[in-house]
Amino acid sequence: MPIRHSEGIWEGTLKNGRGKMRIGSSGFEVDYSFPSRFDSGVGTNPEELLGAAHAGCFSMALSLFIGEAGFTQNHIQTRAGVHLDKTENGFGISRIELDTTADVPGMDEQMFLELAEKAKTNCPVSRALTGVKISLDAKLERDQSAPEKPEPDFNRAPAEKPRSANNPE
Amino acid sequence: MPIRHSEGIWEGTLKNGRGKMRIGSSGFEVDYSFPSRFDSGVGTNPEELLGAAHAGCFSMALSLFIGEAGFTQNHIQTRAGVHLDKTENGFGISRIELDTTADVPGMDEQMFLELAEKAKTNCPVSRALTGVKISLDAKLERDQSAPEKPEPDFNRAPAEKPRSANNPE
Repeated sequence: MPIRHSEGIWEGTLKNGRGKMRIGSSGFEVDYSFPSRFDSGVGTNPEELLGAAHAGCFSMALSLFIGEAGFTQNHIQTRAGVHLDKTENGFGISRIELDTTADVPGMDEQMFLELAEKAKTNCPVSRALTGVKISLDAKLERDQSAPEKPEPDFNRAPAEKPRSANNPE
Repeated sequence: MPIRHSEGIWEGTLKNGRGKMRIGSSGFEVDYSFPSRFDSGVGTNPEELLGAAHAGCFSMALSLFIGEAGFTQNHIQTRAGVHLDKTENGFGISRIELDTTADVPGMDEQMFLELAEKAKTNCPVSRALTGVKISLDAKLERDQSAPEKPEPDFNRAPAEKPRSANNPE
């Protein structure tokens, strides 16, 4: 099975130095620094890459479980919020919040919530991150292309004949 | 403390669909797919992003510990090899190999190896990845700008007077 290689390079001191993270075989690089990790400096940080990995892994796993249940989603969108906090042992990633919405024609909400929970527990990145509390907020999107037909309202009064300037009574 | 947000989006079925991972506030996107994750298709995958996050976090933590020990490295370069394997419970990230080299003027190897081990154990991404076996191979680079002076060799025979066509004996 595949082994994936990526790199992290740091030059200079912690506070005034600078780093690069090189993503896999594409060799694409992103910059990081002390301010971009612990403050609001320009650049990214390991937590943003970890969140992207987790959100991507979760969305893919959810598509697997939806497929196994006999459905196909149009779209799954997951946001990961990665919390970097001060702990007794220095900084730590205490929590990741997954926030997912999906458009799955024909699936009921109960089944969707069960499958989303299954993806949270079983996706490879979740199973690697056992040192982190992972929470999930899952929402099934109404399929906008096929709105539900409204129930007929038998109590409604019959439509009146419209009045207009051309049809005075 | 900061919360970092990234996204993972999936469209279509697992095998024929396609995904995007959006990295943090920069909004930079990378593509992934079934072939780019489980085979050698074009694009990246969650494991490459996780490896970049881990290598970046490790290198930054090592720069902290080197600084606390009273030294400053010129350069730390870390490669993370992320293993995605088939397990009893589906695919899992079984192992990450960190391979680091650093150029730290004045530091001896024993101290360097101890600090590298400390960074492996304590960097926030390592501490989050408690479900993964993490190994480390650390090497201290010789500072090329200040090569060690060779020990004098008292056993060497005195240099002979060079012979040449202009100096026949």
